[in-house]
Amino acid sequence: MWKNRDVISILDFSREDLEYLFEAADKIYEYLISSSVPRLLEGKVVSLAFFEPSTRTRLSFEVAAKRLGAITIGFSGEEGISVAKGESFADTIRMLDAYSDLIIVRHRYEGAALYAAEIAKVPVINAGDGKQHHPTQAMIDLYTVKRLYGHIDGLVYGVLGDLRYSRAASSFILALTRFSPEKLYLISPKLLRAREEVKMVLRQAGIVFEEVESLEEVIHELDVLYVVRIQRERFPDPQEYEKVKGSYRVTLSLLEKRAKPTLKILHPLPKVDEVEPRVDNSRFAAYFYQAKLGIPLRMALLALILRGEV
Amino acid sequence: MWKNRDVISILDFSREDLEYLFEAADKIYEYLISSSVPRLLEGKVVSLAFFEPSTRTRLSFEVAAKRLGAITIGFSGEEGISVAKGESFADTIRMLDAYSDLIIVRHRYEGAALYAAEIAKVPVINAGDGKQHHPTQAMIDLYTVKRLYGHIDGLVYGVLGDLRYSRAASSFILALTRFSPEKLYLISPKLLRAREEVKMVLRQAGIVFEEVESLEEVIHELDVLYVVRIQRERFPDPQEYEKVKGSYRVTLSLLEKRAKPTLKILHPLPKVDEVEPRVDNSRFAAYFYQAKLGIPLRMALLALILRGEV
Amino acid sequence: MWKNRDVISILDFSREDLEYLFEAADKIYEYLISSSVPRLLEGKVVSLAFFEPSTRTRLSFEVAAKRLGAITIGFSGEEGISVAKGESFADTIRMLDAYSDLIIVRHRYEGAALYAAEIAKVPVINAGDGKQHHPTQAMIDLYTVKRLYGHIDGLVYGVLGDLRYSRAASSFILALTRFSPEKLYLISPKLLRAREEVKMVLRQAGIVFEEVESLEEVIHELDVLYVVRIQRERFPDPQEYEKVKGSYRVTLSLLEKRAKPTLKILHPLPKVDEVEPRVDNSRFAAYFYQAKLGIPLRMALLALILRGEV
Repeated sequence: MWKNRDVISILDFSREDLEYLFEAADKIYEYLISSSVPRLLEGKVVSLAFFEPSTRTRLSFEVAAKRLGAITIGFSGEEGISVAKGESFADTIRMLDAYSDLIIVRHRYEGAALYAAEIAKVPVINAGDGKQHHPTQAMIDLYTVKRLYGHIDGLVYGVLGDLRYSRAASSFILALTRFSPEKLYLISPKLLRAREEVKMVLRQAGIVFEEVESLEEVIHELDVLYVVRIQRERFPDPQEYEKVKGSYRVTLSLLEKRAKPTLKILHPLPKVDEVEPRVDNSRFAAYFYQAKLGIPLRMALLALILRGEV
Repeated sequence: MWKNRDVISILDFSREDLEYLFEAADKIYEYLISSSVPRLLEGKVVSLAFFEPSTRTRLSFEVAAKRLGAITIGFSGEEGISVAKGESFADTIRMLDAYSDLIIVRHRYEGAALYAAEIAKVPVINAGDGKQHHPTQAMIDLYTVKRLYGHIDGLVYGVLGDLRYSRAASSFILALTRFSPEKLYLISPKLLRAREEVKMVLRQAGIVFEEVESLEEVIHELDVLYVVRIQRERFPDPQEYEKVKGSYRVTLSLLEKRAKPTLKILHPLPKVDEVEPRVDNSRFAAYFYQAKLGIPLRMALLALILRGEV
Repeated sequence: MWKNRDVISILDFSREDLEYLFEAADKIYEYLISSSVPRLLEGKVVSLAFFEPSTRTRLSFEVAAKRLGAITIGFSGEEGISVAKGESFADTIRMLDAYSDLIIVRHRYEGAALYAAEIAKVPVINAGDGKQHHPTQAMIDLYTVKRLYGHIDGLVYGVLGDLRYSRAASSFILALTRFSPEKLYLISPKLLRAREEVKMVLRQAGIVFEEVESLEEVIHELDVLYVVRIQRERFPDPQEYEKVKGSYRVTLSLLEKRAKPTLKILHPLPKVDEVEPRVDNSRFAAYFYQAKLGIPLRMALLALILRGEV
């Protein structure tokens, strides 16, 4: 079911796939708590091919692989950018294919991970490419909801921020189509609305959703609020960025006045200024817990792909 | 005594703490000699958060952690600098707190390690911040004296160089207050004299010290000469740097003419031109031995903090 | 025979040395196939001192060391360049000597690896320095021929490309003098002909060789075609580079029309445009297999040097 599978888009995975993954992650979670993690990936080599910088996602995958006994190699940061400029992408992937058992790719261009998967004989995991796909982030996000509420169905979700260019936001929205949310609010300035192709998938899946411009209108209804930052580097036009930056902010006073006391805020991190720092220590903030869950989830993912089981 | 402890300033540690640490380092030293190092930190994750570049300190910690079976993750060099520019320092520390069992921080600003320790639930080690604190370097320095002379008390020390901006020099001077040196000479050009707050700690500890401008005057009295380079990047004003650069140099001919034959020279490295290269192969040079002792000392430190024992 | 040996130039090794190495690599190859690699280098620390960027060679050595249970530390990319600018090369090597059991050096200047070997007490491996020496690449190249043909003697070789500045090409040509090729064609534009000192070694070894300018003339005779790219950064004069870039290209149609059906093409990679991408999937291309063989060959090398046996 999972063995040797590529992970390119969250849409490649069924509800059953994801539930199986979450159970595996629960098992790993217990191993971590009891400091008894088996070296399931002893002798395996995992390549981290980060053609675009990302400290956070890279470190999370690195811990996940190493905690299971795998070896990691790769490049990131400036080195990743210069690799991207030099020899052909295809040859770089072929090199990693020759050296390793699995390749994790991050790239600024849409489709890079899929192309890598076509070239490589070993499985490829998309750690974020282009503006739409970041499937392992979406898996972590749903897993966090699962651990917080015990279930993903039947909740009211809000996704706030740059729904146009944020791949974390798109992937999370698409991931919800595998479950049955009560309702989904897409909350953003007009310029940053979700893309038509994303909304089409929502409609096809029969998800009840609504686009609104202000968090204030809907905050009282939400069980889960997913916030993403505005990323300057995703904007083709800097002028467009200037128009929208700082256009939304989640404050503690709003939450205390209007939100359900059980509301949980998720965020793929890093945050910039879209969430007031005072929120960090409130009961609403679930994003550091979410970051922590990235480890068992990615460990489960690597183990399922490389061994077929946990 | 050591379990889960933060390491922020050398002044946080008593003579007893340090002697306990040195004994643990001796034990590790024996393990290394006999190639029988136990994997005391199997399953532990150590984060290296180097917001300021430092190849040497980073590699030393990395070897120390890995030799005990720990996993290391982190960032350094250009990547560290760009992390420092991006999201909030607090959020970066929280991410590492979620991913690891201990965080080693290096930062150009004073107080960064302490702030990290306040944020993180896991222990934090200061690998150098600002102009004053580099506690693990001071531990290595004292441990080197201990291994060379069998004791730290009763010796005549000279500290030569940029006593104003070098955190290695300040930390070493402060560390001596935990012991009973016979005498301490602070040797530097006038512009680079030790800060008043450092001298106050010396006075409170009852350390007999004297400020002099020339090594020639005192070299014949010294048992230990600690040399630091002048670091351009610590100077707020480049003009000030120009005035003092190259203002002192330890030459072999001076040592052979005037120093005790048993004098040992320590240096936190890297050297630039403050020690003549010919000194490297003389009986006076102890700085490569000192670098080597960084490994068992830091191994002992990590093991004591993460396990409470060696 | 191999224990504690430095690896500076391919000319330091006899035919017997190389055959012993290839047998060790065969043994490691079997371990890799059966996923039963012994941790021969448990507790050893291998330093990667890449003063010049090289993703491919670095990753290959890193996998090799880690698959045998060694710890790796080091620097590369921008960090390596800035290390090269800072403290003296000698001090950097002394630091790594204090921290590790073996040092792998890559440097843009001829002689850097030899100098490192003179300074360090631990063995040093040259991972490429200057324009002439890249001995481990030559070992991989010969080993690839050995695995493809069962023997290295008696074949007709062509080496195509920048024979003047490519250290991979020079090292391969020099390596052939340890065996008995039937004939060797040196194929290059006039400006990029092999250096006189290389040809002198060929003559002394009694290798029958001929310099030609066009692949078309000799392609039908070849059993092995070794191709190297033109590297802009090796040219002292950019004008000279402009004159020769793109001056040769191996196309599939030429191969299909004129080459022996058994011809194998080797390339140290990365490729730029000197081999048409369509060749990659043809029966002629052996370069990805060659890259893959880099792992067992380098594993064997590390094990022989650090343990004396596999």
